[in-house]
This record gives sequence, structure tokens and C-alpha cells, in this order.
Amino acid sequence: MKNHINRRSFLKTTSIAGAGITIKTTAGASPSFLTRKDDRKVNIGIMGTGERGRSLLSLLVKRDDCKVIALNDIDTVVLEKASQMVTKSGQAAPKKFSNGEEDYLNMLQMKELDAVLICTPWTWHVPMAIATMRAGKYVGLEVCGATAIQECWDLVNAYEETGVPCMFMENVCYRRDVMAILNMVRKGMFGEMVHLECGYQHDLRHVKFNDGKSPYGSGVEFNETGYSESKWRTNHSVHRNGDLYPTHGIGPVAQYTNINRGNRIAYLTSTSSKARGLHNYIVDHPKGGKNHPSAKVEFKLGDVTTTVLKTVNGESIIISHDTNLPRPYSLGFRVQGTKGLWMAVNKSLYLEGESEKSHRWEDAAPYLKKYDHPLWKKYEAKAAGAGHGGMDFFVVNDFIESVKNKVEPPLDVYDAATYMAITPLSEQSIATGSQPMPFPDFTKGKWMKRKPIFAL
Amino acid sequence: MKNHINRRSFLKTTSIAGAGITIKTTAGASPSFLTRKDDRKVNIGIMGTGERGRSLLSLLVKRDDCKVIALNDIDTVVLEKASQMVTKSGQAAPKKFSNGEEDYLNMLQMKELDAVLICTPWTWHVPMAIATMRAGKYVGLEVCGATAIQECWDLVNAYEETGVPCMFMENVCYRRDVMAILNMVRKGMFGEMVHLECGYQHDLRHVKFNDGKSPYGSGVEFNETGYSESKWRTNHSVHRNGDLYPTHGIGPVAQYTNINRGNRIAYLTSTSSKARGLHNYIVDHPKGGKNHPSAKVEFKLGDVTTTVLKTVNGESIIISHDTNLPRPYSLGFRVQGTKGLWMAVNKSLYLEGESEKSHRWEDAAPYLKKYDHPLWKKYEAKAAGAGHGGMDFFVVNDFIESVKNKVEPPLDVYDAATYMAITPLSEQSIATGSQPMPFPDFTKGKWMKRKPIFAL
Repeated sequence: MKNHINRRSFLKTTSIAGAGITIKTTAGASPSFLTRKDDRKVNIGIMGTGERGRSLLSLLVKRDDCKVIALNDIDTVVLEKASQMVTKSGQAAPKKFSNGEEDYLNMLQMKELDAVLICTPWTWHVPMAIATMRAGKYVGLEVCGATAIQECWDLVNAYEETGVPCMFMENVCYRRDVMAILNMVRKGMFGEMVHLECGYQHDLRHVKFNDGKSPYGSGVEFNETGYSESKWRTNHSVHRNGDLYPTHGIGPVAQYTNINRGNRIAYLTSTSSKARGLHNYIVDHPKGGKNHPSAKVEFKLGDVTTTVLKTVNGESIIISHDTNLPRPYSLGFRVQGTKGLWMAVNKSLYLEGESEKSHRWEDAAPYLKKYDHPLWKKYEAKAAGAGHGGMDFFVVNDFIESVKNKVEPPLDVYDAATYMAITPLSEQSIATGSQPMPFPDFTKGKWMKRKPIFAL
Repeated sequence: MKNHINRRSFLKTTSIAGAGITIKTTAGASPSFLTRKDDRKVNIGIMGTGERGRSLLSLLVKRDDCKVIALNDIDTVVLEKASQMVTKSGQAAPKKFSNGEEDYLNMLQMKELDAVLICTPWTWHVPMAIATMRAGKYVGLEVCGATAIQECWDLVNAYEETGVPCMFMENVCYRRDVMAILNMVRKGMFGEMVHLECGYQHDLRHVKFNDGKSPYGSGVEFNETGYSESKWRTNHSVHRNGDLYPTHGIGPVAQYTNINRGNRIAYLTSTSSKARGLHNYIVDHPKGGKNHPSAKVEFKLGDVTTTVLKTVNGESIIISHDTNLPRPYSLGFRVQGTKGLWMAVNKSLYLEGESEKSHRWEDAAPYLKKYDHPLWKKYEAKAAGAGHGGMDFFVVNDFIESVKNKVEPPLDVYDAATYMAITPLSEQSIATGSQPMPFPDFTKGKWMKRKPIFAL
């Protein structure tokens, strides 16, 4: 039997000595992040220095509590861009690993490396996270959906075998309105949670296709002839039909409903609409047309996928995935309890007994301001200018603080496995005519005793 | 083989002689609505003179093309109220039928009766509609969900045996914004339909409970001690768990997607949240409390029910049922196609290439005005003041006009069966852990040839 790192909030400032912690890495050595002193900066490596990796890197190089000492990407152009960001910030030149797809394993040999951020294409996330845990480096895992349930178990097993934490970098959990609502939920202002909605409703057509030279739009190329995300992400839309990107929705909703911490998802069903958007985009694009090779491709991803979850505590949750059609961006949050509800799309809420007019929507803004989360009040200035409306600052900050304080992250490997599992379960449900799919308990019963820690 | 009434739009003013139409009624006699001359007023009877029946009656007595000649209700108090509405309007006193639950059958013996509006509690709808068709009277059937799929087949069978039309009185199909959007859908402004949402999100706690003397709120009584709807409707929330009231949502959506007219529903899944709202309402009510007898009742109806339908043409449709919690009224429409979408809750739409700002919501109001449906332009003055924002005028008008013109109604028995079937299928899906339920084809293949006629 082994002891895990004590679970506590990263906000507590008491330092812990790491006494009694036994982490079994493949190397057998004690991970450097456990032995580092609080006055030493956290040594970070990044796997994947594309658009997302460099976006997070831009936040890391502004911090005075960490150093980026290693970078990994098979694309030397983006790797060099990233490296220059580090040196321009005044830090020493990081080690670069670009010698083939497996070179990240060599990066993991660096003894002084404390933690690794994984920002690679989706299918690399799990093998890299597992190798990183086995190497004794604290993992920061960018979001995606899994390809198979077994991937989720592999993540959990790697954590349970090594004891090395893996934080799931779900940034939307830190969105300002999302956190204000969490504050209100925890104060009981919505009553007991009953029904929630969320999703990823984002016209990604300009992300899925480009001209092969620049990342967004201006062409209908993808796969071999594409650039950046269109080089790998679009292929999932060709072959897979399911909610490919559920975590921006379920992440926040999991905090509202204490998933893995007193609650868990029991099962889901998923239904997908026809697929029209991507083909139409190619045909209608000035650089496309019906004779363009991309127009011959049959995209299996339904334009709108609707997944309905039921929790063991009785909440129903709708997750929408809608990335192939013209539409305004919306994560579509709805948080409904016995005393009222908030909806993001009309920026409104209704609270029985609190809202002035009976059964009339009320502007949510004054509430979001009044119940602004203490974390946002504290870090507002620092978060200004960070990616995605500032929320990227918070997810990076929580990651670094967790490493520094040698504690479990607020979004851990069980959360990663749970959120990511929605994708293959959604695919399986759709493939079998919306059959309900039982949801694995990745905590193997620990959810009954685990307590909420996110943003507490 | 028999001939049905020719199907054509009620808007055509050419009168048809009824030649070649053979209607087989139980009495064997030719129905009076077929032999009536266009200069004779339509003779109408109403079954059920409660709140809803009298609301429709108030529209009928204003019309100069029909007479209300018979009324049926077991409650003599509301029957007398209705009768006085007729006589006060200057019409002759209607015959009253209140001699027990089967007295409506005696009303159907009236030879001069052309048509019957059925506004009784839900479980009476189908037997009354069938008896009315068999008696050769044109049926106007108020909305509800079925209790069993067989009820839906029974309706269809009665129609196919007798040839007597049955109009489903789904008033929301006639809502002004709903019809303007239908106009835009038919003009192709949203492109090909992909995903739709709708529902019945209406805090009915004040409808489900009252003081036993007046219809809305002011008490927590229901069943024997309740009044009006709480006397019968609430009991469905005690015993049933499913979407009890799907038609206000699916009615309009069925027009957008041509259900039963080139398209049909293939299957559905349904998921229900925990049930808290009704019990909490009783406990918290000044006249309730935890020791009130109503507080001992276990309500099986989940507070929010989510039903997801898939059509054979590939659209996905979400229907929400949300009647037990505090919330603003909303039918939650979303109409999404390959070129853009409309959402009712934020009163906004987005149309690619049309909306001024890329990927930004646009106020729907100017579009709703510009594409106001011709029917609304024509009848706006007459509709003013009619129930539910004027839409009740339209549904009643279509009913009377269909009878007058001896044509099939725009919402017919197949539509009634289809919309009503969602309820028992939803219950079955929920009862079996959200298993997908195949959707019957009530048209038995005729949907492949039937053409849209609603509001055309």
C-alpha cells in the first residue's frame, strides 16, 4: 500500500515537507518536484509548441516562479518560435527535442525537470501523460476527448501506479462568469442542482481548414496539405461521429454537481444530426468548389451532437457539440436548481424570491459582479491579457501552484478520465442508435468520500 | 377502398361539393358538415367547458360563421357559465349534456351538429375523439400527450375507418414568431434544417395546486380536494415520469422539418432529472407544510425531462419538459440549419452572409417583422385579444374554416398521433434507463408522399 500526496487546496500556503509520500516512478528516483525547495523556481517542459503550446508558454515566461527549460515538437519551425519566446523573456535557452516522434521520452530523462505541459495533438495526450507520470514529472494535460475508454483507464492506472499527479488543464472551469456562478451554487442560491446544460458550440470551419500556410481559414486544405490543427484535428471529423470536445462543457458542470466528489455520472445517451456543414464549406469556399479533393471526403461527424448524461445524484446534463455550422460562439451553459436558473445565452438568471419580477428573466451581470469569485478578485490584474478572457492565467497558475505546493491539482487524473470518457461513450451510443452507455467509475468508489477542492 | 376528403389548403376559397366522398360512420348517415351549405353556420359542440373550453368558446361566440349548439361537462357549474356565454352573445341557448361521464355520447346523437371541440381532461381526449369521428362529426382535439401508443393507433384507425377528419388544436404552431420563422425556413434562409430545440418550460406549480376553490395557486390541494386542472392534471405528475406535454414544442418543429410530410421521427431517447419541485412547493407554501397530506405524496415526474429525437432525414430535435421549478416561461425554440440559427430565449438569430457582424447574434425582431407570416398580416386585427397572444384565434379559425370548406385540417390525425406518442415513448425510455424507443409510422408509409399544407 502506498500513500498518495495529501489532497488539499492549493490556496493553503502552509508548505508540506512531502514526508510519508512514496512515489513509485519507473526510474525509482524521487521526483524533482517533491524535493525542490519553495525558493527554487519550477522547471517546466512543454510537449507540443503549436498555437496552444505557445499560448500557454507566453503565460509561463511572464511568471517569476518557473523556468521553461525544455521544449518538444517534431516541427522545428514552431519549436524555434517557442524557444525564442523563452530567450526573449530573459530566461536561458531551453533544451529542444525534435528528433522524431519519440524524442519526448528523452526530454523526460532530464532530472531537473519538475513538470510537463502536454499540448500536442489529441492522440498523443495519453501516451505522453503516462510516460511523464512514469518519469516522475508532474503532468499538466491539455484538454481533449479520449479515443477509447481504455485510454482513460490507462491514465488512471499510471497515476495509481506512480502516485505522480496529473492535472487536467480545463481552462473554462476558470471563466469569470462560470466561477461566479460556482460561487452562487455553493452559497445555495440556485437550491439543489437539478438540470444543467453546456457544450462546445463553436464554428470551427476556419480551424478545420486553411491554406496550408497559416492557421485560420483562407483555404480548404487539411491533413497532409493542411497547417496547424487542420493537419490532425480535422481528420477526427472525417472518421468519428460523437462529441469530440466535451470538456469545456462538462468541466464547469462537474464543479457545479461535484462529479467524482460525492457524485458521479451514471450513464449517457448521444444523438447526432446529419453532417452537412464541412462539405458545404468546402464547396462554397472561393478556394474550394465541388471538384476540390476535399469535396470528395465524407465527413462522418454529425454537425450537432447532443449527449444527455444522468448522474447518480439525479441531475440531468445536456452537452452539445456544434462545430461545423455558421453560428456565434457559445458554450451554452444552463445551471438549474430548485430555486432558479442561470442561462449564459441570454445572460440572464431567475432566482425565486430574489428576482424582482416574478417569472421574469433578470440581467445576470449584477449578480456576476456581486458574486465574483475571490480568485478573480485576487488575480484580476495578473489575468488581464491572458488567453481566452484571462482564464488561461488561472489554469496555468493552479498548475504551477500545485507543483510548487506538492499537492494534488484541483482537476486531477480522475477528472481527466471522466471528462475525456464522454467522447468514446458518445461515439458508441451514436453508433448503436443512441443506446445508453454505462459510465465507468474511474475512482473505483473513491468518489463517495472525495471532497470538492476546486477553487476552495 | 374508400375515398378520403380531398386534401387541400383551407385557404382556397373554392367550395367543393363533397362529390365522391364516402364517409363510413357508425350511423351510416352522411355527416352534416359535408351536406351543409356554405351559407349555413357551422354547428359546434364543446366537450369540456372548464378554463380551456370556455377560453375557446369566447372566440367561437365572436364569430359570425358558427353557432355553439351543444355543451358537455359533468360539472354543472362550469357548464352553466359556458351556456351563459353563448346566450349573452345573442345565440340561442345550447343544449347541455351533464348527465354523467357518458352523456357526451348523447350529444353526438344530435344530427345538426357539424363539429365538436374536445377540451376535457387528457384521458378523455381519445375516447371522445373516436366517438366523435364515428358519429360523423368533424373533431377539434385539444392538445395532450397520450397515455399509451395504442391510443394513438386507435385515433388513426378511427379516422381511417370513418374518413372523418380530426384536427389537432396545437395553438403554438400559430404563434407569431413561430410562423415568421416558418416563413423564413420555407424561404431557405436557414438552409437545410439540421438541429432543433423546443419544449414546455413553464412553472405549473400554481396550476398543479390550488385551494380547491379557484384555479391558480393559493393552496396545495389537488385530486379530490383540488379545483380545475389540479383535480386531474396533477395526478399525472404523481404517477408518470416522462414528457407529459410535448406538443407545444414538437408542433412548430414538425412544421419546420415536415414531419409526416416527407419526413418522420425515427426514434427517441428520454432522460429525467430528480423530482424535487412539487414536494418543495408544498412544504414551503403558507397553506402547506411538511405535515400537510400533499407533502406525503411521492411525485414521480422528474423536474426536467429531456427527450432527444432523430428524424429519418437526419435532424436531431431536443424537447424539454420543465414544469415543477421556479423559472420564466419559455418554449425554448432553436431552429438551426446549414446557414444559421434562431433562438427564442435570447430573441436572436444568426444568418451567415446576412447578419452584419460575423459570428455575432443579431436581434431577431426586425426579421420577425419583415417575414411576418401572411396569415398574421391578414388576421392581425381579428386575432387581437384572443388567448395566448392571439394564436388561439388562428387555431380556431383554421378549425372552422376546415369544417366550412370540407377539407382536411392543416394538423391532422396523423400529426395528433405523432405528437401525442412522444409522451408514452418518453415514459418507456425513462423507465428503461433511457433506452432508444423506435417511433411508429402512424401514416403507414403515406409520409413519403404527403406534402406540407400547414399555413400554405
